[in-house]
This record gives sequence, C-alpha cells and structure tokens, in this order.
Amino acid sequence: MLTSPDLAAHRIAAEPYYRPVGDEIAVFEAAWAHRLPVMLKGPTGCGKTRFVEHMAWRLGRPLITVAAHEDMTAADLAGRFLLDAQGTVWHDGPLTQAVRHGAICYLDEIVEARQDTTVVIHPLTDARRVLPLEKRGELIPAHADFQLVISYNPGYQSAVKDLKESTKQRFIAIDFDYPAPEIEAEIIRREAGVEAGLAATLVAIAACSRRLRGQGLDEGASTRMLIHAGRLASGGVGLETAVNAAIVLPITDDADMRAALRVAINACLP
Amino acid sequence: MLTSPDLAAHRIAAEPYYRPVGDEIAVFEAAWAHRLPVMLKGPTGCGKTRFVEHMAWRLGRPLITVAAHEDMTAADLAGRFLLDAQGTVWHDGPLTQAVRHGAICYLDEIVEARQDTTVVIHPLTDARRVLPLEKRGELIPAHADFQLVISYNPGYQSAVKDLKESTKQRFIAIDFDYPAPEIEAEIIRREAGVEAGLAATLVAIAACSRRLRGQGLDEGASTRMLIHAGRLASGGVGLETAVNAAIVLPITDDADMRAALRVAINACLP
Amino acid sequence: MLTSPDLAAHRIAAEPYYRPVGDEIAVFEAAWAHRLPVMLKGPTGCGKTRFVEHMAWRLGRPLITVAAHEDMTAADLAGRFLLDAQGTVWHDGPLTQAVRHGAICYLDEIVEARQDTTVVIHPLTDARRVLPLEKRGELIPAHADFQLVISYNPGYQSAVKDLKESTKQRFIAIDFDYPAPEIEAEIIRREAGVEAGLAATLVAIAACSRRLRGQGLDEGASTRMLIHAGRLASGGVGLETAVNAAIVLPITDDADMRAALRVAINACLP
Amino acid sequence: MLTSPDLAAHRIAAEPYYRPVGDEIAVFEAAWAHRLPVMLKGPTGCGKTRFVEHMAWRLGRPLITVAAHEDMTAADLAGRFLLDAQGTVWHDGPLTQAVRHGAICYLDEIVEARQDTTVVIHPLTDARRVLPLEKRGELIPAHADFQLVISYNPGYQSAVKDLKESTKQRFIAIDFDYPAPEIEAEIIRREAGVEAGLAATLVAIAACSRRLRGQGLDEGASTRMLIHAGRLASGGVGLETAVNAAIVLPITDDADMRAALRVAINACLP
Amino acid sequence: MLTSPDLAAHRIAAEPYYRPVGDEIAVFEAAWAHRLPVMLKGPTGCGKTRFVEHMAWRLGRPLITVAAHEDMTAADLAGRFLLDAQGTVWHDGPLTQAVRHGAICYLDEIVEARQDTTVVIHPLTDARRVLPLEKRGELIPAHADFQLVISYNPGYQSAVKDLKESTKQRFIAIDFDYPAPEIEAEIIRREAGVEAGLAATLVAIAACSRRLRGQGLDEGASTRMLIHAGRLASGGVGLETAVNAAIVLPITDDADMRAALRVAINACLP
Amino acid sequence: MLTSPDLAAHRIAAEPYYRPVGDEIAVFEAAWAHRLPVMLKGPTGCGKTRFVEHMAWRLGRPLITVAAHEDMTAADLAGRFLLDAQGTVWHDGPLTQAVRHGAICYLDEIVEARQDTTVVIHPLTDARRVLPLEKRGELIPAHADFQLVISYNPGYQSAVKDLKESTKQRFIAIDFDYPAPEIEAEIIRREAGVEAGLAATLVAIAACSRRLRGQGLDEGASTRMLIHAGRLASGGVGLETAVNAAIVLPITDDADMRAALRVAINACLP
Repeated sequence: MLTSPDLAAHRIAAEPYYRPVGDEIAVFEAAWAHRLPVMLKGPTGCGKTRFVEHMAWRLGRPLITVAAHEDMTAADLAGRFLLDAQGTVWHDGPLTQAVRHGAICYLDEIVEARQDTTVVIHPLTDARRVLPLEKRGELIPAHADFQLVISYNPGYQSAVKDLKESTKQRFIAIDFDYPAPEIEAEIIRREAGVEAGLAATLVAIAACSRRLRGQGLDEGASTRMLIHAGRLASGGVGLETAVNAAIVLPITDDADMRAALRVAINACLP
Repeated sequence: MLTSPDLAAHRIAAEPYYRPVGDEIAVFEAAWAHRLPVMLKGPTGCGKTRFVEHMAWRLGRPLITVAAHEDMTAADLAGRFLLDAQGTVWHDGPLTQAVRHGAICYLDEIVEARQDTTVVIHPLTDARRVLPLEKRGELIPAHADFQLVISYNPGYQSAVKDLKESTKQRFIAIDFDYPAPEIEAEIIRREAGVEAGLAATLVAIAACSRRLRGQGLDEGASTRMLIHAGRLASGGVGLETAVNAAIVLPITDDADMRAALRVAINACLP
Repeated sequence: MLTSPDLAAHRIAAEPYYRPVGDEIAVFEAAWAHRLPVMLKGPTGCGKTRFVEHMAWRLGRPLITVAAHEDMTAADLAGRFLLDAQGTVWHDGPLTQAVRHGAICYLDEIVEARQDTTVVIHPLTDARRVLPLEKRGELIPAHADFQLVISYNPGYQSAVKDLKESTKQRFIAIDFDYPAPEIEAEIIRREAGVEAGLAATLVAIAACSRRLRGQGLDEGASTRMLIHAGRLASGGVGLETAVNAAIVLPITDDADMRAALRVAINACLP
Repeated sequence: MLTSPDLAAHRIAAEPYYRPVGDEIAVFEAAWAHRLPVMLKGPTGCGKTRFVEHMAWRLGRPLITVAAHEDMTAADLAGRFLLDAQGTVWHDGPLTQAVRHGAICYLDEIVEARQDTTVVIHPLTDARRVLPLEKRGELIPAHADFQLVISYNPGYQSAVKDLKESTKQRFIAIDFDYPAPEIEAEIIRREAGVEAGLAATLVAIAACSRRLRGQGLDEGASTRMLIHAGRLASGGVGLETAVNAAIVLPITDDADMRAALRVAINACLP
Repeated sequence: MLTSPDLAAHRIAAEPYYRPVGDEIAVFEAAWAHRLPVMLKGPTGCGKTRFVEHMAWRLGRPLITVAAHEDMTAADLAGRFLLDAQGTVWHDGPLTQAVRHGAICYLDEIVEARQDTTVVIHPLTDARRVLPLEKRGELIPAHADFQLVISYNPGYQSAVKDLKESTKQRFIAIDFDYPAPEIEAEIIRREAGVEAGLAATLVAIAACSRRLRGQGLDEGASTRMLIHAGRLASGGVGLETAVNAAIVLPITDDADMRAALRVAINACLP
Repeated sequence: MLTSPDLAAHRIAAEPYYRPVGDEIAVFEAAWAHRLPVMLKGPTGCGKTRFVEHMAWRLGRPLITVAAHEDMTAADLAGRFLLDAQGTVWHDGPLTQAVRHGAICYLDEIVEARQDTTVVIHPLTDARRVLPLEKRGELIPAHADFQLVISYNPGYQSAVKDLKESTKQRFIAIDFDYPAPEIEAEIIRREAGVEAGLAATLVAIAACSRRLRGQGLDEGASTRMLIHAGRLASGGVGLETAVNAAIVLPITDDADMRAALRVAINACLP
C-alpha cells in the first residue's frame, strides 16, 4: 500500500493565495456542510484550481487532484490489481483514497474522461454515498469528510462530448470568470512580483485580447498569461518582447490576428 | 472469494423512504411472484433507484446495483480470473453473485453498456434462468430468489444506441415520471428538512423549468435538484443564491436561457 | 479441465414443451441424419431456442448454447490459455467442448459476432468436419454426434452486418414465425397457466400489435410477451394493467403509438 | 512444442475426390516445380478447397489450411510466446510450421485478414523465400518443399478491402467457376449418393438460380448446396422440401425473390 | 539474447544479381560515405529490394529487412521486454540490432506503418544518430556503419497516408522504374532461365500491359511477373497458358480488361 | 533502475553549433530564470532541436528528448510497472527522470501525442510544479532545475488535432523560421564542409523552392536538405545529381512540379 491513511502528502501546509470575487466561498461552504458535490464552471486560467486548493486549506482537508483526459478509465480513478511476488495486490486509485480517508477529490475537466469514469461517481453523488469497487467486490461507504469537486469549461463542450443530464443534475455549480480589473491587477502584482503600473498595463492588454474572443481568437489572454508576461519583463527582457512571448505568440498562429493584437497592445504600452 | 454467501453488505437495514405515485408497487410484486425481469423507465432524478432500494427492503432481498457505462463488458458483470500466488483464481462479478446467492440485481442505464453485457442476461431472462460462465465452462442455475431489474431513460435513446427487440421483449416495464406537486413537496420537506412553504416554492420553480424542456432545456429540474436547493437554503445561503447554484447554473450554460429561467423563478419566489 | 466428457450439465432431463407448427421436426431430423449444419430463421420470441432444446432432448444429445454478441471472439468459442500455478493451461471453449464430446452446439444470433467467430466454423461445416485450434496447433476431428445449429433474425440484418455468402451456403435453413392463433393460445394456456378465454384474448391482442409492425412498431408482441401478460394477470393485477406492463410499455416509448395500441387492445378486452 | 516435424496430422491419407474441369492440375504442377506461390480465384462453394486438398495428396505433401478473417493478425500465422512454468516459450504458428517442415500452406480468403498478415508473406513469395520472425529475431529459410497457396473471391472485393498490387503480383493465378452441367451432376451423384435423374434435376435448379445472380441474388446455388439438397432428399424428406431447406431459404430472405425462385424450381421438378 | 553481434544470419554470402540502369550505385555510395538516410522510390516489382541487397553485399554490411504494415508499432522495430523464468528480459528489435551492430536497416513500404514507427527513426536520421529506447531508459548511439534505407511507392500514397514532411526531408531519394527493354530482357533471361527470343516476347507483352495503366489497370506487369511467366513456360506449360496464369489472371478480375489484354498479348506471341 | 541520478548519458559534452537569428537566447534565458515552460514554434528542419540542445549545453543541464507520436501514451512519459523476478518494479519514464533529477525535458511535436500525454504535463506547468504518478500513488515535486520545452509546427495543425487552449496558455512561445541567406550559407559551409560559393548556390536554390510553397509544394527545402546536398556534392557526385537526390526527389513526386523545380534550380547553378 503506497498511501498512508492521513494522506499527508495531499495536505496543504501554507494558505494558497486566493482573491475572492463574489459569494463563491459561502456557496462552497454551504455545499460542504451537506457534502453536496460541487462543479466549478469557467474558462481556462481563471483560478478554478487555485480556488479548490484554497478551500481545501480553509476546511483543513487533504486535496487529491486528478486531471481527466480522454484515455482515462474508471480503473485510473478507482484502482487496480498489480502483480507482486505474492500474487495480485490491490492498489487504491486516487478517488478511492479520497473516499476511504476523507479527502476532497478534485476531478479537473471531467468531461474529457471516458464515460465509465463519469458513471463511477454516480453512487458517490446521491444519498448512497458509496463507491462500488466491482473488481474487488467491495462497497466502500464514503468517509464523513469526503467531498467531490469537478471542473467544467462550458466554452469547450460540444454535442458529442458533454456530461449526461443524469450526471450534471447531481452537482451544485459555481460560475467563474476573469476577475474585475482592479482585482486582476492585484493578483498579477502579487504573483509576478511587479509594481502596480506594469500590472495595470497588463490588465489593459488582457482586456484588448478578450474583446477579440470569437473574432478570430478562441480565448483571450488568461490571468496566467499576464503573470507570465510580468515575470519575463521583470527578468530583464523588454516589455514588448515579454508580451509577445507570453501572450501574442502562444495565443494565435495567424499572421493577421497577430498584427491586429500587436497594434491593440502597443496602444496600451506606456 | 471476496463475497460472503449471505451478501450481508448488500442488505438494506432501514426502510428507504419511498412515496408511491401509482400501482408501481403492486406491479413489481406481481412480477416478483413469477420472478419476471422488470424494466424501470423514466427521466433522471425521478426516483427509480430509490424505488428499487425500497422494493428490495420490502421483499427482504439483498440488492446489488451496477451502473452501466459504454466501456462495461460482460466480464465486469460475470467475473474474471485474477492472478494470485497460486495461479489464476476466479472472482464472481456482481451479476454472478446475485444469481448464485439470490439477490435482486439492478443494472442502471443498461443501454449504455456494450452489447455483450446485454446478451449475457438473455438466458437469465427466459425459461432457462441460467447464467453461462463461458470462461469457466460453468452453467449457474439462478437462485430461486434472483430477480433482474434494469433502468432505461427513453429520452436518451437514439437509433444507434438502443436495446435490441430481443432484449426489450424479455421485460415487464414500469413507467416513472416526476411526482404530482403535493407529493413532490412532501418528498422535498422530508429529504431536505425544510418547511412546507419553501418546499411548495421549489415545486413551483420546478414546474417552470419543466415547461422549458424541449425549448432550449434538455431536461427540467429533477426532484433531486430541488432537494439540493432546499439544503443549500437551509444552510444559510439566501434562497435566490441557493436556487441559482442548485438549479440554474447546473441545468444550462446558455446566457439567454439562464436569464429566462431566472425571470420565471423570480416570479415564484415569495 | 472444468468439463466432464459426458457434458452432464448440458443434458436436458425433462422434455421441453414444444408445439410443432409444420414439418420442422422432420427437416431437422433429416439434417441430423447427415449431421448437416442447420440455421433457424425467424423473429424474436417465437420459439427458436425452445425448438432446439426440444430437438436436443428428442435426439438424446447434450446441448451447448452460446448467445453471440458483437464483442465475442473466436477464442470465446474455441478456448484459451489461462495462467495457472503450473504455467499456462488450455481451457476448451463451448464450441470445442461440443466438437470433442459430441453435443449439439447452438450459436444464437450468430450474425452479431465478429467475423473471426464466423470463420472458425467453416471447417466444421464442410466435408472436413474439423476444428483447428490454431493457438494449440491442434486439429480436432468432430465427434460423430456433433452438430452445429445457428439462429438468424432476417428482420435485423443490414448491409453492413450480415453473414457472408460463403457462410450462409453451408447451412440448411428452417423458417419460424409466430404460431397460428389456436396453437399460440394453447401455448399461452400451458406456459402462463391461464384459462382458455384469457389466452384467446391475449392472442387477439397480439394480432393487433403485429398488424402495426412497420407502421411505427419494430416488432409486434411476441408469444413470450403474451405469456408474461398472462402470468401478471393471474398474479392478481388487473388484465389491463398486466397488458400495459407486459406489452404496451416495453414495446414502444412513443406516446401516440401507445395510445393507438391501447385503443386497439381495449377493443379486444372482454 | 505441440508440432511434430513430419506434420503427420496434416497429411492426407486417402485421395480426395476431385473432378478436373480444365488445365488447372498442369498449371499447379508447373508452379509447384518452381515453388511459385499460387492464388485460386472463384466463387464460394465451387471446389477451391477440395482442389488444394487433392493437389496436396497428389504431390504427397502435408497441407496446413488457415481460414483468414478480419481479426487475424500476423501472430496468428507466425506464432507467439506463451507463458509457461519455465517462462515464455515460443509456439510456431501454422505458417511457420509449414515453412519449417515443408508443407503446402493454404490461406483461405486471405483478403479478409489484416494487412500485417498480408505483409508477412512477402519475403516468402520472392527470391528470398524466408520468414522473418521479428519477435524471436529469427530468419527462417523456407523448407525446399514449402509452397504458399491463397484463395480469393473476386465477387467480394471492394475498393477498401483488396490485396495490394505488391501482393497480387507475387502469385500465379488459377480461375475457378461452377463446373459444366454433366460434370456437376457427376459430382452430386458421387457426393450426395443420389441417382442420375435427381442429380440432373438439381443441376437444372442450380442453373435457374445462377441466372438470377445480380437480379436480386448475390450468388446462385453452389455445388455444395446441391449436394445438401440431394442428401436431404435421400433422407426421406420430399424433394420440394429438401430444395426449399437447402437452397431457397438459405439463399435469400426476400419474399418476392423466394416466390420467383420457387416458380423457376417447380418448372425443373420431375 | 537471440542475436549474435556479427549478425551472421544477415550477411549476404553471394553477390545478388543486379543490373544497374543509371547512376543509382554512385548516389547510394555517396550517401553511404556520409551515412545519409536513403529513400528508394518506385513501383512494385521493379527491383528496389534486389538493389538494396546488392548494395549491402557490395559494401560488405549485414542487411536487416523489415516489411512495414499498418499494425506495426515502434516496439516491433525497437524491441520489447519478454517474460522469462528470471523475470522480464529485453529483446532487441530488428532496428535496434542494426543500430547496435552496424547493419544497413531496410524498412520496406515504411508509409504503411503507424506513425510511432516513423517517429522512432527521427533521432537516427539527423546529427544525433541515436536511438532512444524509452522503455529501457537507454540511448543507443548508432554504430559507425549503421545506415537507414526505406522504400516508398509514390503511386500508392493518398492524402491520409503519407510520410510527414519532417520525415521526408531527412532522406536522400533515388528513383526507380521498370528497366529499358534490352536490360529487362537480359534480366528475364538470367532469372527465368529462358532463351533470348522468349525473353523479348515477354518484354513486349509487358510494354502492352504498362500502356493500359490508368486505363483500367492499376499497374502494368512487373519484371517479377515476366520472370514467373518465363518459368512456367519453361516448365512445359504452353506460352499462352503461362502468360494467362502469371500475368492476365493476377492483374485484373474485369472480364473486358482481360479480353483486351489477351488481344494485345496474342499480337505479341510468336 | 536503469537511470543514474546525474543523467550522465543525457549531458551534452561539446557545444552544439547554433547560429542565433534574433533574441531567442535571451527569451529562453528569461523563461529559464523562472522555469517557465517554453514552446518552440516553426517549420521542420529549421533548427528547433539544435537550439534546445544548445541551450541545454549553455545552461549546463542534461537534456531528455522525446519525439511524440499519435500512439504515445502518458505511461510512455511517466513510466510503468514491469514484471521482474521479485514482482512488479516501477521504471521511471523519460519525463519522470527529468522531473526527479532536474533535466530539461524536450517533447518534440507534442501535438501528435494522445491527449492523456498532454494532460500529464498540466500540474508541471503551473504553480504546483508536481508530477502525479497515479499508478504509483506518488506526487513528485519537480526538481528546482526541471524545465519543460515543447515544439509545435503551426503549418501542420488542423482543427481536429491541436493543443487545447488550457495547454497552450501555459507556455511562453518562441518563433522559428529559416535563417536569413547569409546566416544560412554560413551554417551550410560549416555543417556540410563546402566552400562559400557552393553554399551560396544552395541557399539560392532553397529560396526558389520556398517560393513554390503553397503552389504545389507543401514545404520548401529545409536547411537540413541543403546540408545533405552539400555533402553529396562534396562526396564526388555532380552538383546537379546531388541537388536532384537531396532536394527535388524527396520534396515532391509530381512530374510537373519536379520539372518546374529543375528549371528554377538550373538557373541558380553556376
């Protein structure tokens, strides 16, 4: 067994910096009080992962995070038998560890996973609160402190790849979006270690790029990209080079779009 | 062998709360008398799982539930050989346990499973009442108390994914739908622990959302969602916030649809 | 080895009730005399499985039945190596058992299986009468009493999923359909234990539903469904409820079709 | 090792009956003299398998027959490692046995197999005459008496499933078709054990059905089907019943086509 | 380990007959001097395999040939772990043997292989000249005498199945086509052991068939087919029969095309 | 364990020749200072791999390169359990080695890999800098000197095969293209060992081919191809033959395109 019951490696020692933008902490705490499953909705890089880390710290629970992908199977969550000198030995997967020992389990971008992964969480998210390990013939009642959190990016979903209604209706939802300008500037100052003027310039640049969403850009610059640009600029590369490397080049390969972005960005530079 | 013959872990100790809405209990009991296979039809979150738990308790039989998914195979139901220090050892799957020891086996959303899963139940659902374990060369006659129950959501089925006629015709069917308003309010009062006025408000909200089904919503709010909203509201979050988090945000990502829903809901709020 | 050479578990002790409708018994016996492979054609629930059980009893041979499905492989029929404390040990599959020990092997809905399953039967169904076990390098001559029987539902086949001409032409065929009214009533009386008037009513109801085949119904009510309805009705549920649960609800989810069926059925009720 | 070097099980003891229809024996013998690979082309049930059995007997070589299918892989032909008490042990596949010990290897309906199966035969069918066992790192020079024969039904091939030009051009081809009437009658007399008049009637019936090929029938009745009908008729079933069971019912499920066939057949009956 | 370091089984003892048609030997030798990867382009049966055998003999290097196919994986080239009484043991694949011990590795019809096979050769075909065995965590520097040669038939490629630009640009290319008439006749005389007149006739027949390429024929007769026809004819079958079996029947199944070919061929016969 | 902690085999002993074309070294160094993930964008054969080798040498870090392909899975990067005489033993994959021991990990053409491969790098490329080994239940914090670099060819991407926005936004990007003429000539002189005149001629030829990009050519001649031509020409083959073998034949199979290329090239020859 590779896991210790206190899940020490999954406890969050220091408070993760998180800047609230609405009533998301109150809603999460009300859901936690009834251990209701929670779904975090919003675009990439806007702070969903940071929020769940913050809440796990705040509630004093270990956090087990799993990034879902389209080749992930139920066994990747629940566990599997591995061959050993003594024969096959069962190894709990990350979800089973969380269920058994009372962690918050965060399934990031759950909709990417194969359907068997989605179904395995059904009996955990209704009145039963059990995890059936079919391969072991075991029915694990969830620890009193177990809670399930998933994330979901509505902009990505298509008709062929979406959560089933019978899955969606099991979750309380909290909406996320990029923070308001002053808040975003505060986050960038703190995370990239830059002074206020540069942070404000980067927020202005982000606003430009986000207005181009749907007009040739799939997404605007995320808060994460602004932090990257801030770090590069504070590392001695010029601001224009930093913004080009951290924002313009990653966001699009289209020459016209890049030119348009640069014009808009130059207008924001000091 | 990980299973004990009395299937103790699968017995239901306390009566699961179930509020009948028609003659479903009489039909199930008549089917049980002849051990006829039963199919429960109806939308998500309307109480099918609770009903089968109630019937298992009422009839005093253990209940083995399996949530089907599109990667489920016959071996997940029937069992498989696992490698052990002594060589390969057979492990009964959940269906085989039910067949051998006389449980009710509930296959939830069977139509999601691969066809070999469907076919494995054929000889159990006609006069033969046997389960052939081809990998073991064993033919298990079903225990006198074995009964098979499956669920099926007609709203989901498409031409490419449906039960074969030769499977459908083996089952007695019972139809489910959301309960009538007074009954639904009674269920919410009991399950969410809220007083009658709030329960009635939530039922009125559900009615609004269900009228939008097919006009931009795939499904209206289920009874389960109303219970979630009740619990959040009783946890100190305001009613509007609770309804937003438990109903509006999970049910749709479309901004116009959300606005329409909120207008309709506000008209129901006290 | 899990199989005993006399295939005791596959012998049919008591005569299975079968009511002949034409010269099918004579044709089967003539095919058996030359051990010619036989294909049973016809819709679901009309008695093909019962017929082959009856013939196996009549001819005094063990019967090994395999329900084919689209994930079935040649190894599921022929056998496979399993790992044991002594290394890998070969386990005969159901077809190999039948070939070695002289059973009738019945492959139900063979067209559902993958093509390798179909091809494995070729050398068994021509002058060679051998089963090559390629994985063992063994060539098994069929026991003198081995015979192969397959079933096939012509209504299901599509251009993409059909038997190859080189497979079809290896079989003698026998056609099945629902029995004539008096015969069907006789079967229902005997199988459901109801009196003649109720049996006649159920046959009249079946006739109504079968006339709707192709006009919104994929199949009409099978003999099996009539027996289910008879059993429910004899169990104390009212006749209308019994017919609804055993016939109307399983056969279609379309509200208009259900209404039409109910009108037609009510006209038949006493 | 399950194979003995003399391939005793694959030697053909008695002369298989084969009635030549042209210069096919001379062409095969000329190809054999140079060990050139041979492809037998023609419809199902016209005698290709019987011909290769006859040639193997005539040339005194063992014959290893493999029926190809779309799930067959190169390993099914070449061999594989199996786990044993001593570790993994190599088992020669049927092609490797033929290559090592000098058999004629007959790959029936090769075009059905996956492409890796086709490619494995390339170095065996040019000047190299070697079989590389990549998994063993072994290069087996073919035994001096090894010859490769494949069959191919031109009527089945489609653009998506055909032999590659680089495969086709490695083979000498021999064309097969149904035999001339007197020859076919002679074959039926001998194989079904019927007298000349009945054989002639069956050949006349075959001619009718073959004229309908492409006008609703995929294939006409093969010689094999006529032999089946002859055997049933000689077993005491009436001739009309025998022809119906052995020819009409297997060949088509279309009611109109069956009626047309029966009219044509009745005109042939004595 | 099944491989000896001197790759004795892969050395070519006698000079393989090869008749040059241009500067292909000089180009190959210049590429060899820098160990540049070489791609041989041209239709089936025109001598690419023979050429690479000849060059391996001429340069005194062992030759390891692998025929690619669409189920070939990187592991088939690089090697894999196999289970042994001592645990898992690594077995070098054919490419790894060539890289380690300094052979010419010839990947025939590389474009048929899966993409992982193509990518595995990238670090071998640039300045790095290394083979990473990811499964072993080993980085093998290529032996000084290792060279990679691949073949490619431009006529076969489609948009969906082609080498990536980043693969193509790593290779020097040499074009092949059928040889000029006198050279082809010389090859046939030598390989089929026929006299000059018959060889000339066969070359004339080939010219006819090649003119029909694209007008109903996918490919004309290859040099290989002419050699086959020569061998059959020298084996006592008449020339017309030999040409029919070796060229007409293999090349097309279309009756009209066969008739046209035969008319053209008869005009060439002496 | 096959890996030593100092990753000696992955250290680059001698300075790899790299000719800078802009501020790419400064941007990479600024990203390295914060260990920001870097994406190298540009066409095949323009020096991306050489650049990352140069930077690894310059920064004194070991470099672990993995060429991605569409059959690559997360296990190929992260590692897997292998069976040993003592039972299953874990083997770190290349990414895990880099994370544990502080190497630069270069994932070449990452977009070719399956999505699970992409997702495995997410927690390594944000504030967490951890690699979860789900199969081992281990969470590896990245070594302080670990950095992730990926390459990406924008010309290849299609709508169905592209990085997800949530992946792209995690990387700083650096654009690459073919170098300016004088720089490219300098590179060719050095790498192919040819004098300045020939290098200039080859650069002129490259310019011609690159102008044909999008007019029948998918890509123009890369710097790599020019080096190949230089080496062949310096090996005694005439310049025209060298350019034909190294550039014209590999780049296109279209006869008209080849003729056009040759005309353009001849105009460049001295």
